[in-house]
Amino acid sequence: MQKTLNIAIVGLGVIGGSFAWALKEQKEFPVHLMGMDHDPKTLEQALQEGAIDYGETNNQTILQQADLVIITLYPNDIVNFVETHRSDFKEGTILTDTTGVKGNLVNQIQSVLPEDVDFIFGHPMAGKESQGFAYADGDTFQDANYLITPVESNKQENIELLTRILVTLGFKRVSEVNPQTHDEMIAFVSQLCHILAVSLINSDEPERQTAEFVGDTYRELTRIAKINAPLWTELFLYNKEELLKAMENFQNQFNYLKTAIEQENQTALTDLLVEATSRRKELEQADLKLQSATNKEEK
Amino acid sequence: MQKTLNIAIVGLGVIGGSFAWALKEQKEFPVHLMGMDHDPKTLEQALQEGAIDYGETNNQTILQQADLVIITLYPNDIVNFVETHRSDFKEGTILTDTTGVKGNLVNQIQSVLPEDVDFIFGHPMAGKESQGFAYADGDTFQDANYLITPVESNKQENIELLTRILVTLGFKRVSEVNPQTHDEMIAFVSQLCHILAVSLINSDEPERQTAEFVGDTYRELTRIAKINAPLWTELFLYNKEELLKAMENFQNQFNYLKTAIEQENQTALTDLLVEATSRRKELEQADLKLQSATNKEEK
Repeated sequence: MQKTLNIAIVGLGVIGGSFAWALKEQKEFPVHLMGMDHDPKTLEQALQEGAIDYGETNNQTILQQADLVIITLYPNDIVNFVETHRSDFKEGTILTDTTGVKGNLVNQIQSVLPEDVDFIFGHPMAGKESQGFAYADGDTFQDANYLITPVESNKQENIELLTRILVTLGFKRVSEVNPQTHDEMIAFVSQLCHILAVSLINSDEPERQTAEFVGDTYRELTRIAKINAPLWTELFLYNKEELLKAMENFQNQFNYLKTAIEQENQTALTDLLVEATSRRKELEQADLKLQSATNKEEK
Repeated sequence: MQKTLNIAIVGLGVIGGSFAWALKEQKEFPVHLMGMDHDPKTLEQALQEGAIDYGETNNQTILQQADLVIITLYPNDIVNFVETHRSDFKEGTILTDTTGVKGNLVNQIQSVLPEDVDFIFGHPMAGKESQGFAYADGDTFQDANYLITPVESNKQENIELLTRILVTLGFKRVSEVNPQTHDEMIAFVSQLCHILAVSLINSDEPERQTAEFVGDTYRELTRIAKINAPLWTELFLYNKEELLKAMENFQNQFNYLKTAIEQENQTALTDLLVEATSRRKELEQADLKLQSATNKEEK
């Protein structure tokens, strides 16, 4: 990869900005880094601080030059962006996104995609609760996982190139998974968790002096209740079907506990707690195995 | 407090053992530390390692000498213990517990309590997921909060003495709260959180490769799913009424989100997420205020 790569980042928020910094800080390959953001102040800041080499608020020359376009917009905006710029992309360019949902979004984007570009859908499993370029940081992706959800039209060489770039940026493991599995798993391990945190903190009664009673448990469970509301509204609705399934599975388990408590059924209650303990221990074991597998691959 | 205090710890698990170590490690006042545990091996280990000065598996001489008895048994066992040893306690002795529930337990204990002892009910807001003396540690309580739930019969001087001892052991803030408020708040900030973690992990589908998808969010939300099942079964049932109320409040909020998602009601969904974000920010502000108030008190 010694030829200079022309990379465009569309949207210089906390994720786009972190990609910019990580690309600037790596020394593996030369990059000409172009940024697009609708806010001229963000562009100016990114230019002044050296996160990008060049910027435009609306595309004039960037997309025509870019070998790789990293789009970090909200889901609805990505579809509009691709449709609007159908004829601006360089032939053979690689497009990629960083959205936390895939299935429905992939279908929408593919329906507006020109034939001569290759859109590789991706999802960095890292982020921050704070929004905006000011919180962007080249270390955001250090040791995080990255999920790529290949589609039939993707070229293997492009997936390999993107994977090499992602590893250079600090991602520990880049896995491929089909969009459907991605959405099912994300509904459970991420979206449902956000639903629980939001429901928990919203169920507090306002007149209480809750802060005087909370410990690490409540703080940990509500950390992600500080949420980018417009973005997550889109993410939840894009993944409506899988999320509702995960919510219903959760409700079933919650109701088993509730019934056991109502009926003072000690055996049932203890059994559910024992099951949870054993599952949590299994997760810790699986975590260790994955870690040692990744470390072996590194050697 | 220069007179040697005769202190008995009943139950040398992770909490009782941590009290023992913290009492041994402090240099503010001289202590003669006696331990009771039904397991002779635990007693032997505690003696050998120097966590206690003397031990008995069943009371022979300890309770007759103790000025302060710290009972760290499970809720049901405390009631039995107090009833069994009604006539063994020294006159004027202070008893205290470390149980995470109060109202119903307080009533049960008071109904079997001899008149010439003073039971001050307490709850250290700290703990560990691991059980047993081997995990006990003098630092467990460092900077944690302690809740005392006074009852009418408590002597003010005894509450003050216990408070001074707790601060010496490392607790940052010892607050007094009535048993009813304690149980209502604990149902919300602790018990409901454990119910959510257990329900979440139990709602996973077993054939999934979940570990490959999880990030910090899921790990944080399920940390407390590793739970002492028999103990928490008792804690949940002792606080059944308040816990069910907290669970129902949670269900209401969860259902608001679910309905908004089902109906694709973006405005309602965003409003709920904005509300959660603002509550979480308020909690962080309140945390900071409490911290600065505590720091001022320390000066």
